[in-house]
Parts: sequence; C-alpha cells; structure tokens
Amino acid sequence: MKEMEQGRTGVWLVGARGSVATTTVVGALAIRAGLAGTDGMVTAQQPFATAGLPRVEDLVFGGHDTAKLPWPVKASELAEAGVLPAQYPRMLAEELEEAESRLRPAPASGRPGQDAEQIVADLTEFAEREALERVVVVHVASTEPAAAEHPAHRDIGALDLALAAGEEAVVPPSSVYAWAAMTAGCSYVDFTPSTGARLPALDQLAVRERVPYAGRDGKTGETLVKAVLAPMFARRSLRVESWSSVNLLGGGDGATLAEPGANAAKTASKSGTLQAILGYQPDGQVRIDNVPTLGDAKTAWNLITFSGFLGGRMRMEFTWSGLDSVLAAPLVLDLARLTARAHQTGHYGVLEDLGFFFKDPHGHRLAHDLATQWERLCAFAAALSPDAAPAA
Amino acid sequence: MKEMEQGRTGVWLVGARGSVATTTVVGALAIRAGLAGTDGMVTAQQPFATAGLPRVEDLVFGGHDTAKLPWPVKASELAEAGVLPAQYPRMLAEELEEAESRLRPAPASGRPGQDAEQIVADLTEFAEREALERVVVVHVASTEPAAAEHPAHRDIGALDLALAAGEEAVVPPSSVYAWAAMTAGCSYVDFTPSTGARLPALDQLAVRERVPYAGRDGKTGETLVKAVLAPMFARRSLRVESWSSVNLLGGGDGATLAEPGANAAKTASKSGTLQAILGYQPDGQVRIDNVPTLGDAKTAWNLITFSGFLGGRMRMEFTWSGLDSVLAAPLVLDLARLTARAHQTGHYGVLEDLGFFFKDPHGHRLAHDLATQWERLCAFAAALSPDAAPAA
Amino acid sequence: MKEMEQGRTGVWLVGARGSVATTTVVGALAIRAGLAGTDGMVTAQQPFATAGLPRVEDLVFGGHDTAKLPWPVKASELAEAGVLPAQYPRMLAEELEEAESRLRPAPASGRPGQDAEQIVADLTEFAEREALERVVVVHVASTEPAAAEHPAHRDIGALDLALAAGEEAVVPPSSVYAWAAMTAGCSYVDFTPSTGARLPALDQLAVRERVPYAGRDGKTGETLVKAVLAPMFARRSLRVESWSSVNLLGGGDGATLAEPGANAAKTASKSGTLQAILGYQPDGQVRIDNVPTLGDAKTAWNLITFSGFLGGRMRMEFTWSGLDSVLAAPLVLDLARLTARAHQTGHYGVLEDLGFFFKDPHGHRLAHDLATQWERLCAFAAALSPDAAPAA
Amino acid sequence: MKEMEQGRTGVWLVGARGSVATTTVVGALAIRAGLAGTDGMVTAQQPFATAGLPRVEDLVFGGHDTAKLPWPVKASELAEAGVLPAQYPRMLAEELEEAESRLRPAPASGRPGQDAEQIVADLTEFAEREALERVVVVHVASTEPAAAEHPAHRDIGALDLALAAGEEAVVPPSSVYAWAAMTAGCSYVDFTPSTGARLPALDQLAVRERVPYAGRDGKTGETLVKAVLAPMFARRSLRVESWSSVNLLGGGDGATLAEPGANAAKTASKSGTLQAILGYQPDGQVRIDNVPTLGDAKTAWNLITFSGFLGGRMRMEFTWSGLDSVLAAPLVLDLARLTARAHQTGHYGVLEDLGFFFKDPHGHRLAHDLATQWERLCAFAAALSPDAAPAA
Repeated sequence: MKEMEQGRTGVWLVGARGSVATTTVVGALAIRAGLAGTDGMVTAQQPFATAGLPRVEDLVFGGHDTAKLPWPVKASELAEAGVLPAQYPRMLAEELEEAESRLRPAPASGRPGQDAEQIVADLTEFAEREALERVVVVHVASTEPAAAEHPAHRDIGALDLALAAGEEAVVPPSSVYAWAAMTAGCSYVDFTPSTGARLPALDQLAVRERVPYAGRDGKTGETLVKAVLAPMFARRSLRVESWSSVNLLGGGDGATLAEPGANAAKTASKSGTLQAILGYQPDGQVRIDNVPTLGDAKTAWNLITFSGFLGGRMRMEFTWSGLDSVLAAPLVLDLARLTARAHQTGHYGVLEDLGFFFKDPHGHRLAHDLATQWERLCAFAAALSPDAAPAA
Repeated sequence: MKEMEQGRTGVWLVGARGSVATTTVVGALAIRAGLAGTDGMVTAQQPFATAGLPRVEDLVFGGHDTAKLPWPVKASELAEAGVLPAQYPRMLAEELEEAESRLRPAPASGRPGQDAEQIVADLTEFAEREALERVVVVHVASTEPAAAEHPAHRDIGALDLALAAGEEAVVPPSSVYAWAAMTAGCSYVDFTPSTGARLPALDQLAVRERVPYAGRDGKTGETLVKAVLAPMFARRSLRVESWSSVNLLGGGDGATLAEPGANAAKTASKSGTLQAILGYQPDGQVRIDNVPTLGDAKTAWNLITFSGFLGGRMRMEFTWSGLDSVLAAPLVLDLARLTARAHQTGHYGVLEDLGFFFKDPHGHRLAHDLATQWERLCAFAAALSPDAAPAA
Repeated sequence: MKEMEQGRTGVWLVGARGSVATTTVVGALAIRAGLAGTDGMVTAQQPFATAGLPRVEDLVFGGHDTAKLPWPVKASELAEAGVLPAQYPRMLAEELEEAESRLRPAPASGRPGQDAEQIVADLTEFAEREALERVVVVHVASTEPAAAEHPAHRDIGALDLALAAGEEAVVPPSSVYAWAAMTAGCSYVDFTPSTGARLPALDQLAVRERVPYAGRDGKTGETLVKAVLAPMFARRSLRVESWSSVNLLGGGDGATLAEPGANAAKTASKSGTLQAILGYQPDGQVRIDNVPTLGDAKTAWNLITFSGFLGGRMRMEFTWSGLDSVLAAPLVLDLARLTARAHQTGHYGVLEDLGFFFKDPHGHRLAHDLATQWERLCAFAAALSPDAAPAA
Repeated sequence: MKEMEQGRTGVWLVGARGSVATTTVVGALAIRAGLAGTDGMVTAQQPFATAGLPRVEDLVFGGHDTAKLPWPVKASELAEAGVLPAQYPRMLAEELEEAESRLRPAPASGRPGQDAEQIVADLTEFAEREALERVVVVHVASTEPAAAEHPAHRDIGALDLALAAGEEAVVPPSSVYAWAAMTAGCSYVDFTPSTGARLPALDQLAVRERVPYAGRDGKTGETLVKAVLAPMFARRSLRVESWSSVNLLGGGDGATLAEPGANAAKTASKSGTLQAILGYQPDGQVRIDNVPTLGDAKTAWNLITFSGFLGGRMRMEFTWSGLDSVLAAPLVLDLARLTARAHQTGHYGVLEDLGFFFKDPHGHRLAHDLATQWERLCAFAAALSPDAAPAA
C-alpha cells in the first residue's frame, strides 16, 4: 500500500469548553503523550488501519464557546468528577495551556449574518495560522430546541438572504455554524440533536462547496443498545409490545435537557430507532430527567415487553450506567478522522455511511441496526483507502 | 419459481413428553387449526418464503420418552402454568389424542446396542406407517453430564463395535439417538448441550449416510442477548472487564440442571460465546440455579463491567424473563423445517450455517455474533430455494 | 374474651365497576365460598384476631359508578388478564349477579348539591334494605386533578352553602362523596389521591356526625418499598443523594394518569414519603407513564444513589412488578373492616393510626416509615378489642 | 447529665492490614483531623449522643496481621481504587506512620496455645504502653471455613486444656483470638462469619472474665436490605415464593470467598435472615462469586417472587452496588464504641442488643428485622447513658 502524504488536520469544536470537547482534547493529548491507548475509538480497529485516516497525534484542536472556563481548569474539574484520570491535568498542563490559546469566544452579536462571518473568519485564521491542510468542524454544543420550519430552510439562496438580512429566528445557531463551516471550506459533523446541517439548503451548500458532512446525535449509550437489541427481537420474530426508556443524568447536559424544548428535541432524536428497525412503533415513551448529583454518570433504564410463540408474554429490562463524555469523546475523534479523510478523498455532501455513530442518521436509505451500520462503515473505510478507486 | 413436489415430513422428538416438545406439537397443531400465528418462528420471515421448506401444517410428530404422561395431560399442565393459552388443550384435544398414538417408550434396556436397534426400528416404522418422505430427529431430552472422552468417539468403526459390545459408559444416550437417527437415514438436530452428534465418529457416519445434522443447544435467551451485546462492545472498542451470568429456572429443566454433571455441561455450552466474539475471556462466571417455584419462567441476570476511553469504567446489567418452552418451541419447528429441506436438497454432514439457532454451534469457522449468523442463515435459505443451484 | 354482638356491615364502593373494586368483591365472595384464603390481607394476621373486626364473610357490597359494565363481565375480563383466577367468574357467577343488583348509577346531574342528596339517599336505602348495622364508604374511583383552594374548604357551614348553591368548581367530586357519606352517618375511606375527605370542612363534619374517616391513597407498591428502604438509609447514616422513581402501568389507572392533572395529583401523593422519613428531599423525580399493553401489571423502577463513610458513593436500584388490583383489593377489605369497627367502638374524626395503608396519610403526627406505622396499627387494633377500654 | 470521666480506649484489629481495618483507621484519623464527617456511622445519630460512648477522636488503634503491607501503602492502594478520598494518604501520612508502629505480626507458631499466649501478651503490652483504660478486640480477618464440632467447644475447662495441649484442629484461629482477648480482659467483636466467640466455652469465659462480646458478621449490604424487605412482605401478608441472592465481589474478600469452605461459611451466615423473619424458608439460593476486576465494589442482585390476594403472582428485584469497606468501617467504629462503653458500664457476656449490626446475630431471642433491632439498639443506648441505672 502506498502511504499518502498527509498534512496536519484541524478539528474545530463548537462548544469547545464543554465536557465532551474537553475530554476529546485531553484524550488526544494523552494519546500523543503516550499516556493513554485508544480504547473506545472505533477507528483504532483493524478495518480502519489502511484507510489513510489522519493520525490522532496529528490533529490540531481549536474551537468556539460562549463559556470562559479555561481548558486546564475544566480538565481538573473532570478529573475530580472521575471522568478523567486524576493525574492527567497535571501531566498535560503545558499542552492544555497551549491548546487553550486556540480557542475563540463564540460570536453572539444577535445578528446571525454577522456571527456567521465571524465564524468563517475564525476558521480561516485557524487554518492559516496552524498551516492546516483541512479543518473539520464538530458541533458538540448544548442541544437546541427543534427549529420551526421556514421556507428559507429549503433553498440555499433564500438561506443566504435570510442570514444577510439578520432574521434572527430563521436560522438556528447550530445551522449558522454549519453554514459558516461549509462556506469556509470545512467539513462538518453534527454530534448533537440540534438542527445543524440538517436543512435541505445546507445540503445544497455542501454540494456546491464540495465538502462532506455527517450527523446527527452521537450514539453513545441507550440508543446504541437499542440498535442491537431491536434487531434481535425482529430476527427472532418476537413482537415488541412496549419499550419504555428512562434516562437520568446531571452535568451540563442534564441541565440543558431540563429545558422542555431541548428535551423534546433530544427525545425525538432517540425515538426513531425502534420504528426504523422494527417497522412499527411499540407502546412506551422516552424520558430524560435531570438529576444533578449524577453528574456525567448517566443511567438509562429500559423495560421491554414482548410476545412470542402462541402469544406467550415475556420481558427484558436493562440498566446502562455510562460516563457520557468518556463514551462520546473517542467517537468525536473517529468522526473527525473519517470526515477529514472523506474530504481529502473527494467525498462531499452527506456521509450516509457513518450511521454507525449516530442516533438519528442522515439519509433515508440508512438502516438503524448496528450490524448493518457496521458493515457499511467498514465498506466506507475500504473506499477511503489510498488503494481504493477514487470516489465518484 | 417452480414449486417442488413435497411429501409429508416426520419430526421425531427425543424427550417428546417434556415441555419444549409438547409446546412444539401443540403449537404446530394450533397453527394447522388456524388458532395461532407463527410469532416466534424465524422461518416465518421473508427470507425463508422461497426456500422450499416443508409447511408447518405438513409436519407429522412422533417421539420417544421415558416419561409416561400423555400429551393431552401435559398440555393441560402447561396451560395451567401459563405457558400455553388456557383453551388450547380443550380445542386441540382430538388432535393431541391422535398424535399421542405416535409416541413410543424410550428404550432403556441397559444395553446401548440393543437400544440403538430399537430406535432404528421405531423410526423406520414411523416413516413407513405415516408414509413420510423423510424424518428429522430432534433431541430435546434432559441435559446429560459431559461424556468422558473415549477412543471410540473418534472413529465410526470403533463406535459401531463399542455399541455392539454393549459397553455402557462409552456412548452417551444422546449419541445413541444420533447414531440411530443417522443409521435410519434421518437427519438430526441437537437442541440440548448433550453430546449427541458431536463426536467425530458420528460426523463420519453422517457423511457416510449422506444425512445432515445440526446443533447444539438452542439459543433461547441469555446467550441470544450475549450474541448481540458482545459484538456491540467489540465494535465500539469497549473492553469488557467482567461478564457475570445468573440463570434461575424451575420446571423439569431446573431440576435436571440441579444435578452437578448436567449443570457443568450446560454452563460449558453457555460459556464459549464471549471468548469467541470478544477474542478474550472476561472475568465472571455463568451460574444456573434451580428455583422450583419459577417453573418454566426463566430469569437471567447479567452484570457487565467495561472500560472505555482513558480507562473510564462503566457497567450494564440486564434481566431477561422468558418462558423457555415458548422461546424454544418455534425454533424446533424452524430447525426441523430447515434440516429436512437441507436433507431433501442433498446437503449432508454438519450444517454450519444454522449457528444462528445455537449456543454452542458446530463448526470451527462459525461466528458467534448474531448478525453474522443471520446473514449466513439467509444465504443458506437462498441456497435451499428450488431456484438455487444444487448443493455441492 | 367476650364476643360482641355484630350485625352485617355494608361496604359502599365509589368506582364500583373498576378493577380494584371488582377484585375486592370477587375476592370477598371467593373467601366466603371457601375458594380463596386471605393472602395479602393485613387484618388476617394475629394482632387483629381479637380486635372484633367484622368478618369478611359478613360484608355486603354495593356502590356507585358512571360505567355500566356489569360485575360478572368485568370479572371475566380481569380473569382473562390474569388478575383473577380463570375459574372464579364462572364459579361465582350467581353471587356476582346478586351483588350486581346492589349497584347504582353514579349521580352526575352537574349540580353537586343535588348529586350529594342522591348519594345520601342511595346510601340510606342500601343500609335499610340490607338491614346493615353500619356502612363504610370506600372511594376507589379514578384519580382527580388536585382541587383549587377555596375558602369554603375550611368551614363546613360555608361548604354546605356552596353545595346547596350548586357551585360546581368549588367541591371536587370525591369530596361530594365524602360529604354525603358522613351526612348519611357512614364512615369513609379515601383509597385514591383525590381530595375526598381531606378538607378541614369535612373534618369538622366528621366530628359533628361522629363518624371516622381515613386516607389517603392506598400504599400498594413503590411507595411501600420506599417506606422501608428510606428508614434503612436513615438509620445507617447513609445520605440519599438522589432517588428517581418511574412507574409504568396501563389499564384504566394508566389511562387516567395520562391526564396531566391526575398525573400531578398522583405524583404529589407519592412524593412526600422521602422528605418525611429522611428529613430532606433528595434529587430526582417521580414519573408515572401510561403504557397500555402493560394492563394491570405495573412496573416501577427506582434508582437510589447514596453516600457513606468518607464520602464513598454507592447506588441501589429496584424493580417492582406488581398487579395493582391484587395488591389493593385486600387493603380495601382491611380498611373496611378496621374503619367499620372503629365506628362501632366510638372513634370519630380522622383515624391517624391507619397510616400503614396509605401513601399520603392524614395527620401531621404520623410517621411514614412502615415499621412505626405497623406498631401504631397494632396498638390501634388492640384498642379496638372488645376487652379494651372504650375510646375517649 | 453528668459526664463520666473517660480515658483512652484501645481498638485492636485482627486482620489489621485488610481493607476494612485500614479504612476504619484512616476514617478515624480523618475525623480526628477534621477532614471527614461521621456519615455512615450509626452512633453519630441522636439516640447515641448521651450514651457516654468514647469519642472517635479518643480511640487508639493497634492490631495483628499476617500480611506485611504497611498502612500508609495500603491506604494509597485504597485511594487509587476509589475507596478512600485521593488526598487522604498524603494528608494523614504522619498519623498513619505513627499508627503503623502499633501493629504486630500475627502469631503463627502452628501451636494454638502458644499463639494465644502471644496475643495476650501483645494486648497487655498495647494497653500498658498506651495507657488505655480498656481495649476492644475486633475481628475483621479473612473468613474461615466453618469449624468441625468438638466436645471442647462446649466447656471452657476442656477448651483451655485443648489449647494448652496444642491440638491444632480443635480451636479455629478466630476463636483463639476471642479466647486471648477475653483472657486479657478485653471485650470482643466478631465482624466476620468465622467462629470467633461463638462457642459455648467462650461464652462461659466471657462471663467468668466479666467481659462483653458481640457478633457476628457485619450487616453491610444485601442482608441489610433483606432485613427491611422481608418484614415488609410479612406485614402485608404477601407470601415470598422464592428469594434468590447473587453476590459478586473482588478484592481480598472475593479471593477468600472463592475458597469453598469460606464460601460455605459466609453463605450460611447470610441465609438465616429470611427464615427468621418470614417463619419459613422460601425457594432460592445465596451465591457468592469472586469477580476480581470488581475489587471492593460489591454488587448484589436479588430476585424475589411472591404471591398475594387470590394467588396473584408478582416479583421484585434489586441491585445493590456498595463499597464494602466504606460500609463496614463506620460500623467497626460503632461497635468499638458501644462494646467498650458496655464493658465500662459493667455489661458482660453476649450483647444481644447489637443485632442491628450483624447478619447472624448472637442470641436466640433476637429479631432479624431491622426496625425491631433498631429499637433494641436505641433502648440499649439509653441504658448505657451515665444517667441510666447501672446494668444488672
């Protein structure tokens, strides 16, 4: 296999001072420093070894946030909460300080068009100053309420006008970031259930700018389990009567999701999996409750009742206790590597083959069951290889 | 598609008066009578519609058992225990009475060779009297202790001699049934963890007699869940630190498994899945305890601890509450249909493609993860189709 | 011990055609017929043997409902759902038919005063026709939204005027029943979280009419468990950080509680226990979700996180899977027996000693922990004994 | 209340270098240093405030162990494992170093009589050197297999002779410690299921030496929960059909309990609670499995099936995830304080009133339900008060 020459890749984190982003950056620095391995990273596995992905060690991190807490302080907080190993903040203090210098305040002028221009400028400056070959923007900021529909969402010309006119309610903040990323020639990843790139107008923009994008909502826990259990029931011809989901979490994410609009957006993102896999919607709701003392340790409980042969009724329940940032951060690295490489190899528009990573994957043709998603992902990795034929 | 002419298929149940066998027969009769649908049957799904499988309505049931409780009485007991719908025993009384006439006492002369001959005779008589095109023998009798190794297990000539010489300890009872089935030209399915056909000598016999066989140990609950959860952890690069399994059940199965030898055999059968999927053996044991009052309602609890990015430690637990016979019976029908059809289309020797159904599948090349097993099964179904090229 | 002469006792069920009431009546008839024992009945235990309680066999049931489904049909439905033994509806058909004749349509004129008079008339007619020594009214109808406060709630004179004036929104339906019961000289039990007798005005009425009353909201499952677990944490000086409760149920109760007002009322009733026992309110919410396919089989899951010595953080979770009517019905019999006997022995006003039975017990001095409640209940039973000194 | 003059109290830990003992000592030092509060300590509650107990700050710790790992190192290990706060080992380094000097190697001459004499000597030296008013010996060493019965167990004279004769198999090591403690005039606490003081001969010795003792097997998790749930079922007349218990743990305790004899002893200790509270033994077993990676984080899962009114069958399950040393250590402090005070106030022989703390309490008259145990404990605390009448 011929190794492709590969320059440095930038990863721009929207919501850079949050738990997920900070864990991502600390993790990448720890890997570079030889302190940590790649546990939890999907792209550390064999099928991705020859895909020509940028190395974790070669990623350069920057980002926007409205918060001001410096990365070194945030890292110490996460270590105290048991999310990061206790000694990392001290051992990586210098690297974190240096990375901190690449963060920029999130523009918040109240005028979307002006904010968008500022974001473009920040991204351009980042790429030039750091001599980056390309930049991938990853949105890991707080979940927004679902956006009200608007005609401008369906046409990039109309969207451009709406942005320029400064119509505040038209373009949700996450979509402003997606617009700016693509306009700056960056690829883009929606890691949250916010609207982001999921507007037809932005798909048009991605095609026009020939940049790839992927999303949405990282599949880190409960939905991951659903994506393997639901196919199990389906393939065994067991009828799922009800599937009830409860998610308890604290931290910033818990606080955000205590807000009804964000809660509804997140719940909607989590709800499509069963219908998509089973072909019908069982009884039961998805609940997300804020329990501050739980912090980043999210607990999800699911009750599944099902019936089988001759109508026999049975049940299954599971409890998932995960550290959300620990589960999400390696996926952010995976997505940054895959999306940057897709960009490099000429892919553009939505990357449907990355459904493995998302609760609510873009693209109508995408299966929700994890095994099928895995196969598509592996096939995609093969297509990214320097030895593969170039993308159409 | 041209429909192949297909005569009646016999299903001979070893352990015919047990819960699984009785539920199988009542279910098949209920389907034939239009009382029940095919919920829980894998082969009722689309990929099997064109595989040329014998119809459930055309299956004819017989069997051996050392127990004497008539099928109509056993069915009433199962209905009382909530395993079968309350009204079935009454509505199917006539059909059950008729089926009862096809049961034979399990030979128990104390001399394996003589028992084997009697089984061959009973199978031959069953096929002739009922004018069956072919017969598949399904072993659903109580789990035996693992057999001590013996040189005769590795060579069919030596096994024949050992049987003829009446060496009692050499050939375990389940293997006597497998030997007799193959000798009588029947295909064979091991639905329990007993030795059955899993002796090199019997593989030689199957090849010689050109009959197919499959096994072993129907995957009805906990192991089914493991077969989808373990790949989930593996594909997400999450390291499983420990996986502890507890199975509580009553009924005949619970009583049998209270016996240390049988318990060890069952536990061993359940234990291979994780190593096979993960590539390493996590901490933790598999426990099976007899709790008589639970009856057929088996409850399994699993605790899984795992670590991810930067060593973060997390956990998952699940509780599976299934009705064992309700889960097993449709699989017995599936396996009878698939094995009979494989026999008809010229397959012989071990059917590795049926690993989807088993805890401890025959064949070294078989994956344990359910999604891979499902794909192989679907490919196999396609190969069984009247339109497919004949088996090599 | 001298046996007190005791006539027949009437039990008038408000919401008589619901699952709880029907199970209560079928159960009492089954006990009288010798079909069933007294499992689940608290008053079947030793401390109550000498309390002079009316025998279950001597209770006469009547009631109001807006629904029209006859008891024999409802009983068959419950049997099909597995709540009642399959054969009871048939075996008790005659008794149920006879009992059915004592049911009356719930008055629903839209004018509270007129409804109240009708209820008084129905109760009086019931007592006379059946030659009952006394009647206890038990409210088991659907949960109402919490009532808005009103000055008339605090004074029986004002309440009488409001009723007479027909001010509809002032007196909630459950309180109309409580008013009517007391006015008719009957004792009264609130088995639901509806307002019922919990108005200062009705306490005044009970004292004036010298009738006892008790409530509220039968403690049948999750809250019962809380009432023993919370004291355990407290007595071990373990600090409960969070206690999250999820209740999933279907049936009529599930449908009622899908209505936000009723849901809020029920949730409020369940929420007081922890604060009362622990002395502080931990993090976490109480959720009640309607899952129609679960029917009467209610599942509650609770996650408790707590900290101990040197700040060590730990957790406990439990899942309770109960049949709500099966748990509630024997408590209705218990409460009817105890309240009738209290009435007979001269107790009046609120019966604080019955807190053992309720989620949200009347009376400020009442402990919520089950052990203390049990002791008070036993002491009360002793005071009811014919050998005890008469109540003050 | 008059304050009694109180000197320093010694606490001698058998198994002093284990996790429970180390956590106890670190905790007491942290309390003395003002770093930690008394969360998890029962005797920190109101009913014990006036009982005249020695202050935690006035306890002096020493002990025996066969292991050699110094307390400062062991404390660091526990901090790394998350059992102790990360900064404690450093902050308490000096105090731990000083405490370390009071530890002695456990005598292991192979001759019980000689060992016993050495223990007496070590205890005497400890009391004199530290100018202690009295010493309580607490056994927290590894669980032993149950001792075979022997006639010498029933008579202190015979036991003395057996010890002197050096008959090794007669007196289990834990009983050697109990003998030595009492002989040295110390009070004694069995915190493990080992035989310890539970021999009639040792009860005679305690009476003769006028020292109190208590035991056995600290009730830290699963059995604690059983002690409140079982009475709940009993008081509600719900019949427990089965109660299955699984305990998964690692650490030193897990390794010890992987040994069949110790496992059987522990299981036996845990099994008496249900029979004692319910009055019958439900179906189901108690299992304890060693899962090394779990370390000190013990997880217990229990499945309870029960039936109620009209035979309705229901179930409950719970998972308890506790840090064993964190739960045990404050109880060791509680027991040391209470036993020392009992000694001071003239109590001797078995302290039945301390059943609240134990899985397998001494004394036939002791209830196993936690609420009753709590009441007895509070009454005992009152009797210990300087204002109470002296013990008989």
